[in-house]
Amino acid sequence: MTHPSHFIELFFAILALIGIWFSFSNFNSVKRLLIGRPMRTAELNAQHNKLIWYIALPILSADLYSSVAYGPEAGITELAKFGNEAKWYIFPITVSTVILLAILILSYIMGVLAYPNGGGAYAIAKDNFKQRWVSLIASSSLLVDYILTVAVSVSAAVQAIASAYPIVTRYETVLAVLCVFLLLLMNLRGLAESAKIFAWPTFGFMACMLILVFTGFFNETRHGFVQPSTPPFGTVPKGMTILLILKAFSSACSALTGIETISNAVPIFREPRPKNAIKTYIALGIITAITLLGFAYHLYVKGISPNPNNTMLSQLSEYYFGHGLMYQLIIWFTFIVLILAANSTFTGFSQLAAIVAVDGFLPRGLTNRGDRLGYSNGIIALAAIASLLIIAFQSQTNALIPLYAIGVFLSFTVAQFGLIKRWKREKGSGWKTKLAINTVGGIVTSVVAVIFAVTKFTSGAWIVLIVIPLFIFFSLTIHHHYQAVAAELKIDLKTLRPEKNRVVTIVLVSGIHRVVQNTLSFAISLSQANLLAVYVGFDDDSMKKMEAKWEEWGNPCRLVTLKSKYRSVLEPLSRLIKIIEEKEQFKAQIHIVIPQFVTNKWWHNLLHNQTALLLRLWLIRHKDVVITTVPYHLKK
Amino acid sequence: MTHPSHFIELFFAILALIGIWFSFSNFNSVKRLLIGRPMRTAELNAQHNKLIWYIALPILSADLYSSVAYGPEAGITELAKFGNEAKWYIFPITVSTVILLAILILSYIMGVLAYPNGGGAYAIAKDNFKQRWVSLIASSSLLVDYILTVAVSVSAAVQAIASAYPIVTRYETVLAVLCVFLLLLMNLRGLAESAKIFAWPTFGFMACMLILVFTGFFNETRHGFVQPSTPPFGTVPKGMTILLILKAFSSACSALTGIETISNAVPIFREPRPKNAIKTYIALGIITAITLLGFAYHLYVKGISPNPNNTMLSQLSEYYFGHGLMYQLIIWFTFIVLILAANSTFTGFSQLAAIVAVDGFLPRGLTNRGDRLGYSNGIIALAAIASLLIIAFQSQTNALIPLYAIGVFLSFTVAQFGLIKRWKREKGSGWKTKLAINTVGGIVTSVVAVIFAVTKFTSGAWIVLIVIPLFIFFSLTIHHHYQAVAAELKIDLKTLRPEKNRVVTIVLVSGIHRVVQNTLSFAISLSQANLLAVYVGFDDDSMKKMEAKWEEWGNPCRLVTLKSKYRSVLEPLSRLIKIIEEKEQFKAQIHIVIPQFVTNKWWHNLLHNQTALLLRLWLIRHKDVVITTVPYHLKK
Repeated sequence: MTHPSHFIELFFAILALIGIWFSFSNFNSVKRLLIGRPMRTAELNAQHNKLIWYIALPILSADLYSSVAYGPEAGITELAKFGNEAKWYIFPITVSTVILLAILILSYIMGVLAYPNGGGAYAIAKDNFKQRWVSLIASSSLLVDYILTVAVSVSAAVQAIASAYPIVTRYETVLAVLCVFLLLLMNLRGLAESAKIFAWPTFGFMACMLILVFTGFFNETRHGFVQPSTPPFGTVPKGMTILLILKAFSSACSALTGIETISNAVPIFREPRPKNAIKTYIALGIITAITLLGFAYHLYVKGISPNPNNTMLSQLSEYYFGHGLMYQLIIWFTFIVLILAANSTFTGFSQLAAIVAVDGFLPRGLTNRGDRLGYSNGIIALAAIASLLIIAFQSQTNALIPLYAIGVFLSFTVAQFGLIKRWKREKGSGWKTKLAINTVGGIVTSVVAVIFAVTKFTSGAWIVLIVIPLFIFFSLTIHHHYQAVAAELKIDLKTLRPEKNRVVTIVLVSGIHRVVQNTLSFAISLSQANLLAVYVGFDDDSMKKMEAKWEEWGNPCRLVTLKSKYRSVLEPLSRLIKIIEEKEQFKAQIHIVIPQFVTNKWWHNLLHNQTALLLRLWLIRHKDVVITTVPYHLKK
Repeated sequence: MTHPSHFIELFFAILALIGIWFSFSNFNSVKRLLIGRPMRTAELNAQHNKLIWYIALPILSADLYSSVAYGPEAGITELAKFGNEAKWYIFPITVSTVILLAILILSYIMGVLAYPNGGGAYAIAKDNFKQRWVSLIASSSLLVDYILTVAVSVSAAVQAIASAYPIVTRYETVLAVLCVFLLLLMNLRGLAESAKIFAWPTFGFMACMLILVFTGFFNETRHGFVQPSTPPFGTVPKGMTILLILKAFSSACSALTGIETISNAVPIFREPRPKNAIKTYIALGIITAITLLGFAYHLYVKGISPNPNNTMLSQLSEYYFGHGLMYQLIIWFTFIVLILAANSTFTGFSQLAAIVAVDGFLPRGLTNRGDRLGYSNGIIALAAIASLLIIAFQSQTNALIPLYAIGVFLSFTVAQFGLIKRWKREKGSGWKTKLAINTVGGIVTSVVAVIFAVTKFTSGAWIVLIVIPLFIFFSLTIHHHYQAVAAELKIDLKTLRPEKNRVVTIVLVSGIHRVVQNTLSFAISLSQANLLAVYVGFDDDSMKKMEAKWEEWGNPCRLVTLKSKYRSVLEPLSRLIKIIEEKEQFKAQIHIVIPQFVTNKWWHNLLHNQTALLLRLWLIRHKDVVITTVPYHLKK
């Protein structure tokens, strides 16, 4: 009845708790070890190494190109539900996908021409639509999709490894979460997205995929283009409808996410930047098209079937190369490139979130640069949500894919219509061609977005169609709050200046000992006027004793003893505050001085009642009182 | 590949999160709803309704008597591993268990005579051994066992329900944790252990068990005392060793936990209290003995075998009564009584933890009485640890039982030897008989404790044998810390009095707006001498602008602008503190005034940088500075 995998999860949970405790005690040293030394703001601009296009190509294409590892598989998985006879549909579907890819690349090239300084869908929409909610559609759907990209890519990466090493299968979820955690650390360290080192694995993966495709053609020239295992072509299986074909098409289209990366990153290219970016787009388009078509074709010819424990890429590689070196290379390059895809998404997500936050539509904390200049809060939020998704969907790529890509196509659509408005307004050389391209692009992407929403609705897309509007709603609410606060805080420098008020100071004493002496010394140093010591006792006896001891101590200031019937300091204290407020006609500022133990070892905190802390939290929320904490650093 | 049960767990986790958030926003009203109005300390003594012995019997026996539901089953489960032929051993094992029960009850009656005001093993050990670690063995092992009692009783309760309704089986863990949560709420409300309402279910369960036993005998007079299903008697199966029989005996002995309850609770009896308590002990012993012997006997005659999804009690009841009313009554009474057993353990645990904490061997927070006069912290700690155990062991009673009962027998042994010392020292009427009884008791319980440790070592007892010494070690460390702190804090009232010092006040300003005006007003009201406003800028431009604005604002006090290269307020501020400390020759007290936003809705906190909070946490730990928080209550 007991699942050993639960012990593993418990083990990880305990490990995490230990980690948290450890970091509480030695937070700084642990952080330095994992994240590295803090960096100066001035170091920010030094990072820009301008890249030549064929180096930028692999760096910026990890997200798009890595999707070939799961896109065609997702399409065939949908088709295979109708048996072998339906598999031939992967042909027309892949051809349509490639045509869609060409349209998207063309449209995005128009985007690069319009915004040579880099313009994501959000920037384009903001620039061309007065209604803020239009740009919020773009930002919200992209942010949601970035989260899904991390979940899908990491799950697919772990599944690639599990295909080669079946023992890993039962730990997929744990490993996927661990990968997200490592990506989190890497991104908090701030390995720049543009680091040239990231070029090589993608090159390697591209080479592997092309070798695979051409090995396939070579194999077929020798053994025939129709092999014994090839499913029939052109038959229409029972129950197949256009809607179901469109569903398979939507799944295959998950291979198209990540196209926007290049247009966002135009500034990292060497001059002339737009031209180099366009070259990269065209080269990437050609390579991706060849790989998609070739890979889908061979999957069909060899009659590969879906197997949850062995990816189709792994099955096809096994077919050609057995379990030898080439197979291992393909598996590990797939793993690394999918992880790189997730990695580049961290940068994309945190930068977009920061841009939207600067405009006041997301919490301002997302604009804070961390020690290593990355937008740490965005990076942490992404890692946390992606991990939750991976756990909820047990790291199964096929379960996540229905949620995926709607967001991307929504934001594509917004960007296209933004560009259409721009061409109509600005005109410029060849604007009619550009307008035509973006009009076709806009129509196609909106149709695809609708196809996605309809065909995948029941298998999970409904979640996304609820989350995105909610996201937009929250963004608008946040914006409203920021504007209201800004209006409230604004003052006229000429008229509203600091004013002197009467202050009544209350020192809480719990007896007479070194901590109280320390606290009272500070209060007396501030001012001896309007100073009151307050003792809360739980019975008459302790109160009388305290009064006698106070006398013996030389009556350092007036002492008030209060009795608590409910064993809480809060209730008598808030009664006293009320009395003073009324006596002072709400004109005086009440000031409460509380001692706080500072222990040497963090766990000593558990041994001392945290009355001071709780009192402070309660008072600051519920009363208009100023609170001073006087630390007492314990020696023991 | 996806387990639906994980979705359920995720659902519960999300529910819990919502609960936490909700309680943050409306903590007090939620708390009042669940826990009830706060009670005065004076209401504490009103709770004692002195009980007549036959009402006290069921109330105090839930823990012991409910164990018959799993004790014999645990024994037979061990035996059944050797096939049907080993099952007859349950006879001699149950007879030994009943003899052990008699010895324990006799010993505990001696305890009642010695400590008529109630004395648990800890109190007895404390009174008779100078070495504190001896009493800590008693307290630690009892506390550990109380935690296990909750885990075992609740798991067994849920398994009883799952036997009747198999659909429950897959949600056992979730339901068990839910039960612990409900027990937590009940105990925070403080339904007194002595509430008479708790008498009836135990009476009901006793009646059911006796009816079951006598129905069995009636059945056997009609169908013969050896039935077709009865396993052979007296055969020695291959591979059976004394060690394995002792292992089965240890499992069966898990039925004996809870004997100490009556001796702890002597004060709740009507006068003459010791006499009434002794009556209760004898009556309980007779009923438990009849039930254990009869139940084990029928299990043997009917050849009942272990089934993880159907408890033996449920199987036997099905055999006699089918799935009719009587069966339902037995199942539901079993459930309620097992839950009551866990409930009474909450009181036992929190009271013992409070007594040990008063002596300074556990965190002092355990002595705090909550709103409803229960020791809330102990109650919460017990619920948390028991839940973790239930989750780790997937709510399987048989997996938990090897960890169980060692603690109880350890504490029994300590109590017996304490009594032996007492009789030798104090003598008194009939002391030689009493000494003899406790000597026999001490030897028997220590032998049983050793049997437990040896036979169950590899199946989980090692955990307990590591945890108990660790617990004792922590208790001693805590005691040492408290003594060191007390020595450090003690002052001579005549010589050490509050002293007036120089104070340098620093006000952190982030610009000029209403919050800064509010903060600065307070600082000026305290004192205009040694007042410094500090602005931290991230670039020269913002610093210059701030200086100009400050001029325009009429220079309310001296302004210092600091530049932060690392985008952190902390680093320039701690540099400034160092400079001031050195300039003042470490004689002045540095006082930092920080504004704090207080938002209307809790989630608005997420929208404002919590710089003030983080700064406060860091400064109070790392610097000897006093920190004042001036709240600004946002209207929007």
